[in-house]
Amino acid sequence: MKTRIGILGYGNLGRGIEIAVEAAGDMELAAVFTRRDPAGVKILTEGVPVVNVGEIEQWKDKIDVLVLCGGSATDLPVQTPKYAEMFNVIDSFDTHARIPEHFADTDAAAKKGGKVAMISVGWDPGLFSLNRVYANAILPDGKDYTFWGKGVSQGHSDAVRRIDGVKNAKQYTIPIDKALDAVRSGENPELSTRDKHLRECFVVLEEGADAAKVEKEIKEMPNYFADYDTVVHFISEEELLRDHAGMAHGGFVFRTGCTGVNKEHKHIIEYSLKLDSNPEFTTSVLIAYARAVKRMADEGQTGARTVLDVPPAYLCQQSGEELRKHFL
Amino acid sequence: MKTRIGILGYGNLGRGIEIAVEAAGDMELAAVFTRRDPAGVKILTEGVPVVNVGEIEQWKDKIDVLVLCGGSATDLPVQTPKYAEMFNVIDSFDTHARIPEHFADTDAAAKKGGKVAMISVGWDPGLFSLNRVYANAILPDGKDYTFWGKGVSQGHSDAVRRIDGVKNAKQYTIPIDKALDAVRSGENPELSTRDKHLRECFVVLEEGADAAKVEKEIKEMPNYFADYDTVVHFISEEELLRDHAGMAHGGFVFRTGCTGVNKEHKHIIEYSLKLDSNPEFTTSVLIAYARAVKRMADEGQTGARTVLDVPPAYLCQQSGEELRKHFL
Repeated sequence: MKTRIGILGYGNLGRGIEIAVEAAGDMELAAVFTRRDPAGVKILTEGVPVVNVGEIEQWKDKIDVLVLCGGSATDLPVQTPKYAEMFNVIDSFDTHARIPEHFADTDAAAKKGGKVAMISVGWDPGLFSLNRVYANAILPDGKDYTFWGKGVSQGHSDAVRRIDGVKNAKQYTIPIDKALDAVRSGENPELSTRDKHLRECFVVLEEGADAAKVEKEIKEMPNYFADYDTVVHFISEEELLRDHAGMAHGGFVFRTGCTGVNKEHKHIIEYSLKLDSNPEFTTSVLIAYARAVKRMADEGQTGARTVLDVPPAYLCQQSGEELRKHFL
Repeated sequence: MKTRIGILGYGNLGRGIEIAVEAAGDMELAAVFTRRDPAGVKILTEGVPVVNVGEIEQWKDKIDVLVLCGGSATDLPVQTPKYAEMFNVIDSFDTHARIPEHFADTDAAAKKGGKVAMISVGWDPGLFSLNRVYANAILPDGKDYTFWGKGVSQGHSDAVRRIDGVKNAKQYTIPIDKALDAVRSGENPELSTRDKHLRECFVVLEEGADAAKVEKEIKEMPNYFADYDTVVHFISEEELLRDHAGMAHGGFVFRTGCTGVNKEHKHIIEYSLKLDSNPEFTTSVLIAYARAVKRMADEGQTGARTVLDVPPAYLCQQSGEELRKHFL
């Protein structure tokens, strides 16, 4: 029997989940839940109901794993604990600093409901976290480096858009090659914020806005830009929509460490992602972990979990025997 | 209480384990077991007994995890099942084709003894296997590439040494940059054996041996060299010992895959290792997994396991709470 997936929230992530479920032979989409009027939500899969979230409780026995596709700022802190009482759930909560709190809230709710709730699944947090943990366990004496990009940062784009005179904007975070090379060379560099990433902004001005003033305001914005080298380009709205609509992203996780009686041997572990579509890759990770959620729930586990708690074999359709034969 | 580690076999791997145990705050070396006369085996750690393997049974209750440091060809197929009846064990069995059989033998023995036995731990099999499994689960529609090197291949070095007229030899496996770049570009190349790796041999001849004949014999050797471009250098024994005694190694695991309604988005996952000391890195992996063996045994698990069965958190000294806070 196929694992029945529910989707809550039908934006970029929700659509990505729908595509990933379709690509997985062992899953089927049971329903899409929305806060909007279901009549106005057109999904890709034929024959699957779109349901107002107000009716979700009626689906308690018809869904194996509910994938929560809301945002981390306001949706998930409420939604994940709420639905973890009714369903096995999975989310991509990515506000690193608030993970302990979100874990605690979700854990209590999932235990109360007798469900499994996996939080913070994606690539960072997610695959990057896995790599940090593996590499730290293996090289306890070492140094971690994480780089992001090239890709659009939603938070930084929003910050630019809030500036007076800015009509629209996209901000790319770009890892600096010289820093990457220094890490790869094993020289264990001390890298400042400015050394690691460049920020590049494409900005559409309101009519009559003062470009020089906007550029200055961007470059001096504390936290967001002041600590970085920032390049600002002014372009037309047409150019922005044509050339900067992509959702590519990626990044790098390194650990450099040493072993030996006199710490004389250096080792470098590098993990990197180059993604054409950030939301589609994120949802591919979510769907693999949804498979694990089902398996852990079937075992009788309850409570909150993260990627750090999941045996890799649980992500796969194949049996342990097949995995050992073909992948080990 | 610290996890008590036993080492069976005191060569490069055994010494690496000793160093890694010393570096881990939560472990201590309990004893080293050897087939040799213990009086002739000098270890690094003071106050730790070296014991003949014939007396190992007396240590049943004094060792939490026994690390088996024998070779995959003849030692481990016998040792791992044998000692899995008495101890929680871990090995680095790396003959890929024989893993299913080794797993079955070890599983039966470990279940009989009520122990946990983890096999094939290291970087390939091991960390590379993990990366293949994660990447395949996340990008089911894709292509895998594994490259090894630059590093010495023991098997290929041995093959050269068996040639008439060869006194000593080292063989390096070298990944070809053009192939790596083609994979990284996302063009999903079809790569032949010759496209992926170059073989470089450093050969010391017996006095009076015919260099041209040896070179021809190397380059035409079926399985080992015939399918590759091979470079042969003749050097003095002094040069071989001076310049080619290192144990550096490494490699790359890629998966390139696509997502999207029309498979229009490409993604590239790359994992790579650059290691100054192959045995010391391998033993660092073994020690992290020895920690997991102890934890799984404490939970009452029994039977054979591989890296695919282990939640990443089990490799770490830190609590789940600390890991979520600092690494997720």
